[in-house]
Amino acid sequence: MDFRELIIKRRSIREFDGKAVSPALVGEIIADCIQAPNARNAQPWSFIVVANSGMIKKLSDESKKNILWDMGDNPSSPYTMYKPILENVDFNVFYNAPCVVYIAGPRDVRSLAVDCALAAAYFMLSAADRGLGTCWVELGSVIRDAGLRNELGLSKDYAIASTIALGYPARIPGTPPRSEPRILKIIE
Amino acid sequence: MDFRELIIKRRSIREFDGKAVSPALVGEIIADCIQAPNARNAQPWSFIVVANSGMIKKLSDESKKNILWDMGDNPSSPYTMYKPILENVDFNVFYNAPCVVYIAGPRDVRSLAVDCALAAAYFMLSAADRGLGTCWVELGSVIRDAGLRNELGLSKDYAIASTIALGYPARIPGTPPRSEPRILKIIE
Repeated sequence: MDFRELIIKRRSIREFDGKAVSPALVGEIIADCIQAPNARNAQPWSFIVVANSGMIKKLSDESKKNILWDMGDNPSSPYTMYKPILENVDFNVFYNAPCVVYIAGPRDVRSLAVDCALAAAYFMLSAADRGLGTCWVELGSVIRDAGLRNELGLSKDYAIASTIALGYPARIPGTPPRSEPRILKIIE
Repeated sequence: MDFRELIIKRRSIREFDGKAVSPALVGEIIADCIQAPNARNAQPWSFIVVANSGMIKKLSDESKKNILWDMGDNPSSPYTMYKPILENVDFNVFYNAPCVVYIAGPRDVRSLAVDCALAAAYFMLSAADRGLGTCWVELGSVIRDAGLRNELGLSKDYAIASTIALGYPARIPGTPPRSEPRILKIIE
């Protein structure tokens, strides 16, 4: 797909049809996404692919629990607006996507968040190019339980940097409004 | 350009021919890049376009000076390997690119670095799609001088999140090696 067509077509998808995503296809998307630029070509990213609905539910529950715990009674938490859905036991933060991909890497890499965000941008575009839908789900990123981390292959020195729900879109929503770009200064 | 062709063609460019980039073209690239996904569609990004070689030299000198100052005698600084080039007065961190674009936003936006990295990924792909070359230049991002910040339109509460050199490539280098993707776990 032409790049300009693709960036319009890629939307955050929060409704998926039931169709599974094959691990081979996820592998192709990952192969695209590691072409992203990154600091010193250190490629600090690793990937975890979860395509099991029971495990996805566990990860959703774990992350919701931890975010609610962190929030406590702090009214200035950035997550306050999400409290009702986080407290709803039936709400799956991954919107019942058939697949969740974590991009993770060593905590001590200073550029980890940015490198993985660049890879995530490529991931989301590559998925859209293949007719798949994605949504970056920050609410699903707080995994602390030692047993669960072990099941994910996440050692203590690794941090989750990007969390992406992946599946076939039930529908592709319209483009949400964008503000006019704020140009602070043009110096010619 | 087809997305898969584009991600191979987009390389970090460190040699530019002398040709200027028109502000209108930079505006088109920015218009593409604000289509990037971002937390809660808050679009915290702003843009500064610098196409004046004297100003670009000043920004290079200011950033080099600050990074050297921060480094001090700390042998574990992540910038130690760059000390010789930072101390070279003739070295321009922007590789003599005719244009530099800063993506900046409010320091207190928790997702600023990641939102702007997603926009930067789009920026670099959009530029490559138009035959331009880019390089994320972290070494050019440390601008503290009040007068210079003022000239850039950067208020105290704004932080530079992404720094991109932009111009027409003198040549497009080959694809640097990528490691095989590290898949920590596939859970089916």
